[in-house]
Amino acid sequence: MILTVTLNTALDLTYGVPELVPHASHRVSDISERPGGKGLNVARVLSALGHETVVTGFAGGATGAVLRELLAGLSPRDTASADAPSSHPVPAPITDALVTVAGNTRRTLAVVDRATGDTTQLNEPGPVVGAEEWAALLARYAELLADADAVALCGSLPPGIHVGAYAELVRAARAADVPVLLDTSGEPLRRGIAARPDLIKPNADELAQLTGSRDPLRATRDARRRGAHGVIASLGPDGMLAVTPDGVWQASPPSKVRGNPTGAGDSAGAGLLSGLVEGLGWPDRLRRAVALSTATVLSPTAGDFDRTAYEELLPGVGVEERPPAG
Amino acid sequence: MILTVTLNTALDLTYGVPELVPHASHRVSDISERPGGKGLNVARVLSALGHETVVTGFAGGATGAVLRELLAGLSPRDTASADAPSSHPVPAPITDALVTVAGNTRRTLAVVDRATGDTTQLNEPGPVVGAEEWAALLARYAELLADADAVALCGSLPPGIHVGAYAELVRAARAADVPVLLDTSGEPLRRGIAARPDLIKPNADELAQLTGSRDPLRATRDARRRGAHGVIASLGPDGMLAVTPDGVWQASPPSKVRGNPTGAGDSAGAGLLSGLVEGLGWPDRLRRAVALSTATVLSPTAGDFDRTAYEELLPGVGVEERPPAG
Repeated sequence: MILTVTLNTALDLTYGVPELVPHASHRVSDISERPGGKGLNVARVLSALGHETVVTGFAGGATGAVLRELLAGLSPRDTASADAPSSHPVPAPITDALVTVAGNTRRTLAVVDRATGDTTQLNEPGPVVGAEEWAALLARYAELLADADAVALCGSLPPGIHVGAYAELVRAARAADVPVLLDTSGEPLRRGIAARPDLIKPNADELAQLTGSRDPLRATRDARRRGAHGVIASLGPDGMLAVTPDGVWQASPPSKVRGNPTGAGDSAGAGLLSGLVEGLGWPDRLRRAVALSTATVLSPTAGDFDRTAYEELLPGVGVEERPPAG
Repeated sequence: MILTVTLNTALDLTYGVPELVPHASHRVSDISERPGGKGLNVARVLSALGHETVVTGFAGGATGAVLRELLAGLSPRDTASADAPSSHPVPAPITDALVTVAGNTRRTLAVVDRATGDTTQLNEPGPVVGAEEWAALLARYAELLADADAVALCGSLPPGIHVGAYAELVRAARAADVPVLLDTSGEPLRRGIAARPDLIKPNADELAQLTGSRDPLRATRDARRRGAHGVIASLGPDGMLAVTPDGVWQASPPSKVRGNPTGAGDSAGAGLLSGLVEGLGWPDRLRRAVALSTATVLSPTAGDFDRTAYEELLPGVGVEERPPAG
């Protein structure tokens, strides 16, 4: 199975409003709720790709209870459909191994202006996690690593968790010989990289914050020197740049698409990890990551990927080998 | 006891943000949650004034459960304090007599821009209430009326409730000989007034929508002709105009104040109802309503009233008798 860790899970709310006018009163025209946090998004895509997934991290309070209920509803019996084309992998189970905390799981709210499609995002900080709760997570994580083929460490840290938390989790994964993808930003990323994760997948802003450079190749190489074995830099609509111990590749979608990029990075992460576990080479892993990410941008529901678009895009993703790092 | 009915209760969330920028991403700096809906606000003020209150209406789902938990926390053991000046009335219990529904109680979200103090409001519509749930409410209401000294019918109707719902509740109260305050707007107000409630307390917008007139005296008299026995029109910072079977009065605060008017109308309603139940004359009821409403605008917490400000304002509220209705 593939393990995903989401220390700051979230109940993702989306409010549709006819038009968002600051300082006015709005009637919300449509509401959706889904279990969120980057690791849960990664797990959802891995499940759709047929990979058994276990999610851990923290959940608590009334919003945590709603999140877990919605997470249970993601199980394959709800997503498998009798008339799905047989070429689709059978969705695999997502197992809830979240650690219960006293605090209330955060909400994130996306207010979507239905006139323009623009989104205004409001993110709660998350519950304060205590030392005993962190110790419980470490114990749970160690148990789960024993059965994991790969692990993804995802997202922001909730209040109360020390900034070197991801470094600690990276070291534990490496000690257990489990390939580890680290997907976070800021100081937790900087500290985490020093613990030498197998993969990081920063976007341009995260890379620039880490390295001070906006030149993708220069910044990606710098990130490797800081400790990451492989760096898969998102180039946004232009695809991805992979700088790895095995070589340097650039992968590009068949054409640039417009849509909602929410969750595209998480889909890419699921593509990379599933490809790694399946023993695919870098070009095929990158093809999958770029096609999934593009199919997520194209999906009408933020964070989901459009399966038909994914299958159509996959053979058209271009992967070009570039000269090795200097 | 005083009964308050809130058909569309709400979990009131407040998010503080450094500055609200449409289409940007925001980290919420502070969060508060409280049980809301106009009738719950009225009950909170009545409790603080020493009046036993029972709240009914609908609550359901995960947000309904949080609302009821927070409502239970409003009980006097939390608000009474040993060192409170003895001049304060002892807070009285608020009893939860809400009817459980299958749908999820709505959230209302106030996003407060901490730079300017301006508020952007996002209101969910509320759960769809079924015919059996409405029948259960009518039965509960009839039982509660038997012990009620007065009843307040408050706020918007949730989806699924017929537009004449308040008219039905007004008639039941009148049949049980319980004085009834109706505080709603739009078509539910228009229909409700025709059932001849004892009191309505519209603001300028609600009056204008009802009568087509923005002249307070003309509109207020028109509202009486439509069926309301007494009309207490809010004049905003200028106080209130009361057109009643016993005479016409205008009540004004000692000075105009600035602050957050959220909940000021609900505090005024509590002032009017408590004065009625205590057998006060109109001038004293109006003094109390204006002082409570002004003390709510002055409170740092939206919807609460500042007790010290209330006691200081009370003797300074001016009440002037005006010529009777023509």
